Amino acid sequence: MVINANFYMDLAVREAWRYQGLTYPNPAVGCTVVGLSGEILAVEAHKRAGGPHAEVEALKTAYFKLTNDEGILNILSSSEIHAYLLKNHKNCFKNVSLYTTLEPCSHIGKTPSCATLISSLGIKTLFVGSNDTNEEASGGNEILSKSGLHVEMNILKDECDALLRPFNKWTQKSFVFFKWAQRLNGTTDCGIISSQESRINVHAMRDKCDLLVIGGNTVRVDRPTLDARLINGKAPDVLIISKSKDFDMSIPLFGVKNRKVIISDNFSTCRDYKNIMIEGSSKMLELSRDIIDYYLCYLAPTVGGSNSFTKLDDKFKILNVQKEAQDIIMWMKREL
Amino acid sequence: MVINANFYMDLAVREAWRYQGLTYPNPAVGCTVVGLSGEILAVEAHKRAGGPHAEVEALKTAYFKLTNDEGILNILSSSEIHAYLLKNHKNCFKNVSLYTTLEPCSHIGKTPSCATLISSLGIKTLFVGSNDTNEEASGGNEILSKSGLHVEMNILKDECDALLRPFNKWTQKSFVFFKWAQRLNGTTDCGIISSQESRINVHAMRDKCDLLVIGGNTVRVDRPTLDARLINGKAPDVLIISKSKDFDMSIPLFGVKNRKVIISDNFSTCRDYKNIMIEGSSKMLELSRDIIDYYLCYLAPTVGGSNSFTKLDDKFKILNVQKEAQDIIMWMKREL
Ligand SMILES: [Zn+2]
Ligand SMILES: [Zn+2]
Repeated sequence: MVINANFYMDLAVREAWRYQGLTYPNPAVGCTVVGLSGEILAVEAHKRAGGPHAEVEALKTAYFKLTNDEGILNILSSSEIHAYLLKNHKNCFKNVSLYTTLEPCSHIGKTPSCATLISSLGIKTLFVGSNDTNEEASGGNEILSKSGLHVEMNILKDECDALLRPFNKWTQKSFVFFKWAQRLNGTTDCGIISSQESRINVHAMRDKCDLLVIGGNTVRVDRPTLDARLINGKAPDVLIISKSKDFDMSIPLFGVKNRKVIISDNFSTCRDYKNIMIEGSSKMLELSRDIIDYYLCYLAPTVGGSNSFTKLDDKFKILNVQKEAQDIIMWMKREL
Repeated sequence: MVINANFYMDLAVREAWRYQGLTYPNPAVGCTVVGLSGEILAVEAHKRAGGPHAEVEALKTAYFKLTNDEGILNILSSSEIHAYLLKNHKNCFKNVSLYTTLEPCSHIGKTPSCATLISSLGIKTLFVGSNDTNEEASGGNEILSKSGLHVEMNILKDECDALLRPFNKWTQKSFVFFKWAQRLNGTTDCGIISSQESRINVHAMRDKCDLLVIGGNTVRVDRPTLDARLINGKAPDVLIISKSKDFDMSIPLFGVKNRKVIISDNFSTCRDYKNIMIEGSSKMLELSRDIIDYYLCYLAPTVGGSNSFTKLDDKFKILNVQKEAQDIIMWMKREL
């Protein structure tokens, strides 16, 4: 294994993928902080909108490692971490390199700008994966270069761009992902498939979605609730794709408060939403094929069931695969 | 992400799994070398029997990083690396920690003992995953403790033990693994499934097996060669499980030189072999269920085909999953 800039960036990329979908409307970003001798001081990710950016999380962890100053440990808000670091850093970052999957933000929004923080802390070198094409936040590299910091661009650019794509889609129009759970033998039927941990993760995803798309037949057969109760989260609106508008209104999904349910024979409603999860079976996968950006598969290491996706003849590119608890979580895109 | 002893050991474990099956009859072992400040100097694995042990590979890489002495780079044989390090180390390892998935060997076999090398180089701390229960090689930790080196045991012990299990089975009796390739939707039929890289990996596995078990029906339908031609490797003996001994002898597997083909209605022949790969379909998976130690799945991110494993109702534990080229390679064991 070669230990170089790609290795450190890959750690940041992998950590960031663990929060993909959960940072909406912010991008999933990861950050690795490396010390003078190449020691890894922190590998952190942005976890949710409103929380500290990846760079801030990583600088906080690195600061504690470098100084042993426990004062920072209980500070959770981003602006307070910024302030604490600026006041107490005493040049402890002067030999530090930062690897961030996305150009640090220059925009002062819910949190102060990371570009300003990084340049103020006297960090040595910044390694960046993707450029930020979002006008509000971009320009961070420029601020940093002007401050005399050495910036290297395009480290694992393709991998970082793949990580960033949902964010770019949200800002342009919308991001649509097809989520399913399956067993090792490909089956998607016969009761609960995923581990409890995976199901909690799906509910956390739903909490961040504004629209959930599902097939009419699945609604009639499974009678789902489609909420985010496992994390006490908010339930997204639901679009049921169905020719007939006739549904048993006692199906739980209709009884969820503060939710709109749309029944339609097409996907045009998706235009009004930003972060859209499609759940379903083989038929829904076919129907929605042309609007899907990414695929998210929860693979349980079990064998059983009887029905699986069979009607497609598709090839995917695996963007990220990680074992989380017992299952595997895979993000993919379709190969053209 | 917490950067601690488990993190460094996990890097070693992951690197070692990439060579699982290829090190036969030696164990798959990984080693991470960490410098004074926590910098990662090397993550290496044992790659094949006769080649340097993981510790030697890792110390070689770390030595170059610490000294920039290019003299070591062209040295490939284990005993020459040992000699070069002992002659030239000039105490460069005095602040170094070593993380090794298996207790360093004390036995002087094809290569000199790693335990002696490590204690002679003045390494600071040794972190060990599994104990070596192999009588010939074990006792390494004792040699090391006596030399004054600080040894910490049982780091990620379960993960390291899972990595070591094939070796323990080889030394006790035999190791049997069931290998298959499938698509995302679980199908195992309709032509080539895996990427070229995965197929090369399978041939490298076959080269190290002494017996390959396959079902009679698969032989009749697929007419396979079952050799290791993609890496110019040796073809293992073949056990065909079939009630009828009647086969078309022009099926390529019968024409491979220096190979024994046994046709039998049971698995008793396995007793005469050490490293046994079973290839096949749903039926073979069922038949061989009770003798399988590990499962090895090559998962291609495609959808297609029509037949998949359906008759089982099994639950697996994923021991390791990694993306290699386009596909995913998963080692599993059955959950009892
Ligand atoms: Zn920021
Ligand atoms: Zn050794």
